[in-house]
Amino acid sequence: MNSSLTILGSTGSIGTQTLDVVREHPERFRVRYLTTNQNLDLLEKQIEEFQPEGVVICDEKAAEEGEKRFGNRVSVLSGEDACVAVATDPNVEIVMSAMVGFAGLRPTIEAARSGKLIALANKETLVVAGHLIAEALSGSGARLIPVDSEHSAVFQSLVGEERSPLSKVILTASGGPFRKTPVEEFEEITPERALKHPNWEMGAKITIDSATMMNKGLEVIEASRLFNVAANQIEVVVHPESIIHSMVLFHDGSIKAQLSLPDMRMPIRYALGWPERIPGTFEPLDLPKLGSLTFEEPDLGRFPCLNIAYQVLEREGTAPTVLNAANEIVVAAFLERSIRFTDIPKLIERALGEIPVVDDPSLQDIFDIDKRTREVVRSYVVPLHY
Amino acid sequence: MNSSLTILGSTGSIGTQTLDVVREHPERFRVRYLTTNQNLDLLEKQIEEFQPEGVVICDEKAAEEGEKRFGNRVSVLSGEDACVAVATDPNVEIVMSAMVGFAGLRPTIEAARSGKLIALANKETLVVAGHLIAEALSGSGARLIPVDSEHSAVFQSLVGEERSPLSKVILTASGGPFRKTPVEEFEEITPERALKHPNWEMGAKITIDSATMMNKGLEVIEASRLFNVAANQIEVVVHPESIIHSMVLFHDGSIKAQLSLPDMRMPIRYALGWPERIPGTFEPLDLPKLGSLTFEEPDLGRFPCLNIAYQVLEREGTAPTVLNAANEIVVAAFLERSIRFTDIPKLIERALGEIPVVDDPSLQDIFDIDKRTREVVRSYVVPLHY
Repeated sequence: MNSSLTILGSTGSIGTQTLDVVREHPERFRVRYLTTNQNLDLLEKQIEEFQPEGVVICDEKAAEEGEKRFGNRVSVLSGEDACVAVATDPNVEIVMSAMVGFAGLRPTIEAARSGKLIALANKETLVVAGHLIAEALSGSGARLIPVDSEHSAVFQSLVGEERSPLSKVILTASGGPFRKTPVEEFEEITPERALKHPNWEMGAKITIDSATMMNKGLEVIEASRLFNVAANQIEVVVHPESIIHSMVLFHDGSIKAQLSLPDMRMPIRYALGWPERIPGTFEPLDLPKLGSLTFEEPDLGRFPCLNIAYQVLEREGTAPTVLNAANEIVVAAFLERSIRFTDIPKLIERALGEIPVVDDPSLQDIFDIDKRTREVVRSYVVPLHY
Repeated sequence: MNSSLTILGSTGSIGTQTLDVVREHPERFRVRYLTTNQNLDLLEKQIEEFQPEGVVICDEKAAEEGEKRFGNRVSVLSGEDACVAVATDPNVEIVMSAMVGFAGLRPTIEAARSGKLIALANKETLVVAGHLIAEALSGSGARLIPVDSEHSAVFQSLVGEERSPLSKVILTASGGPFRKTPVEEFEEITPERALKHPNWEMGAKITIDSATMMNKGLEVIEASRLFNVAANQIEVVVHPESIIHSMVLFHDGSIKAQLSLPDMRMPIRYALGWPERIPGTFEPLDLPKLGSLTFEEPDLGRFPCLNIAYQVLEREGTAPTVLNAANEIVVAAFLERSIRFTDIPKLIERALGEIPVVDDPSLQDIFDIDKRTREVVRSYVVPLHY
């Protein structure tokens, strides 16, 4: 059986690794649509190799150029509606949702409404619109399989445990590059330093999120949606080796965990193959050679973003939308050197304090609050240039 | 729903902890039969508390005394046939097979033939007669749920993974009390020292088996029967903290593991409740407090018994019967100070070299070889008194 695949965000880190997995299993997967924001060079290579029926280039200017470069070989579309169209095409069975940030929201919701198997790498979707995704999934026959290594580990640990009440989700965190950096030095952290993650090679936005531990905060919110657990049932444990990808505690005291060397192709392969595990190349984990796995409590003083995310999860409504939008803006501002590393949590908290929460928001409410938050937070950023 | 329970070996370490679990869930389990070798005092307390219909006392003299002491309150039987009868009684749904050593074999096979849910703590049964147990299980509707913490961990990790080929079973081993003891001192190891296990409180025989790592060797053989894997698919990793109870590696490179603080009531509860996890009291595992989990390769020079077991698994036939019987005799001889700690592997190897292997043995062959091995090994022991 050959499954047809749409990859939303095929030129990003998850997108290219998804294509690695497709390359391993040509008999199993056929790429039907690819989307990118504007990386035409890589997209052109992917078109040559995987021969999709169509591509979507979100950036309009890039789309025009793309049309000229390869419009004779493949259908070239642009815009959000086109992303929705390729995510809901009746000939597509699997949608890899790997666009960065808020842009993945509408295509992912529509893919859920149209009954796809969704491999979800875009955590923002669940963070801001968990209740809408849940609604879209119910009754459509769609399934959501998480691709984040942590949520994949939890998902894998829960397989076959449907009868067994879950007490806790225990998310592991590498602690990022600044786990041991003196807090006094945090003001001086540059984008270059923050982009060096000890264990994972990822896109820039998520790497900064790892450095602030906002990534773990978003994952806490994501876990609450995926596994139907409250904030006080989600624990974060710092595990610098990133070998145990996460754990679940059952009500009998038993913990189940999923382990491997860090390699995003493994959760991608799991999501695409589910409910079957499909084989693939991997570097074997040699625990005796590794010697030890270590664990510590997260330092909430050092990483206020994690705490902010827990508070936002307790508050709910559009608070997660504000959190997510504010974080996207301040991370971009940090990467452009407009603000300092230590401004990241401060400006997010300021936005959360200023923008009123709408409870039980519609998709339109979420779009409105997202837009408003971005405007408000952009206004914070300008005067802070350093 | 109330399940009726026979506990084979109710006065041993697993038996008493099984009754702890029953005590937690009086609405769920009803004790119908208890068996002991000869511990009348404890059996009498258990009769008072759990009000079984009948008890079996294996030792005939003890049975006579038991009949006098509590024969007016409960039916008192003796002998192997009585053990079989209480393991196959049509009113019993669950049989906890927790007799020590070879004695558990026939009652367990008969329980399998009569379709029980068998919680298996007696590893010798699978070691010597894996193929007969498999035959007995097939078609009878019986299910075997392992109670050893390692095999329970593997079993739990495999739940829901029926479609996913298993590459390896990774059994963890504490390494026992002599992991760091200089090999030159091994000759002088006394039973008192060997009986001090760092992590687990267990019966004397299994504690000595842990000190020689024969316990892990028997577990390797047991794992091959339970999970249908070859010797080269079973790896032993020393993990002194005994927190990860064992692991499985799938063909996609993913490892699943089950963890908890060492507490045999947890795998007992799992086996009795399967396919549901039933709640119970437990000390929570606090990984940050623990700090680290460590791993090393087993030192086969220091622990030759582990290697012997791997060779026996490759050889099959009645070799596992000889291994098991020889080990029972030499461990008893060591506990009686008739031989030294270092004689344990030597005498087992001698027996394996001298007693010819019968391939594809019947139950009668196994009984014959078991008996012969015990006689032969007893003859080794006498002259070695120290």
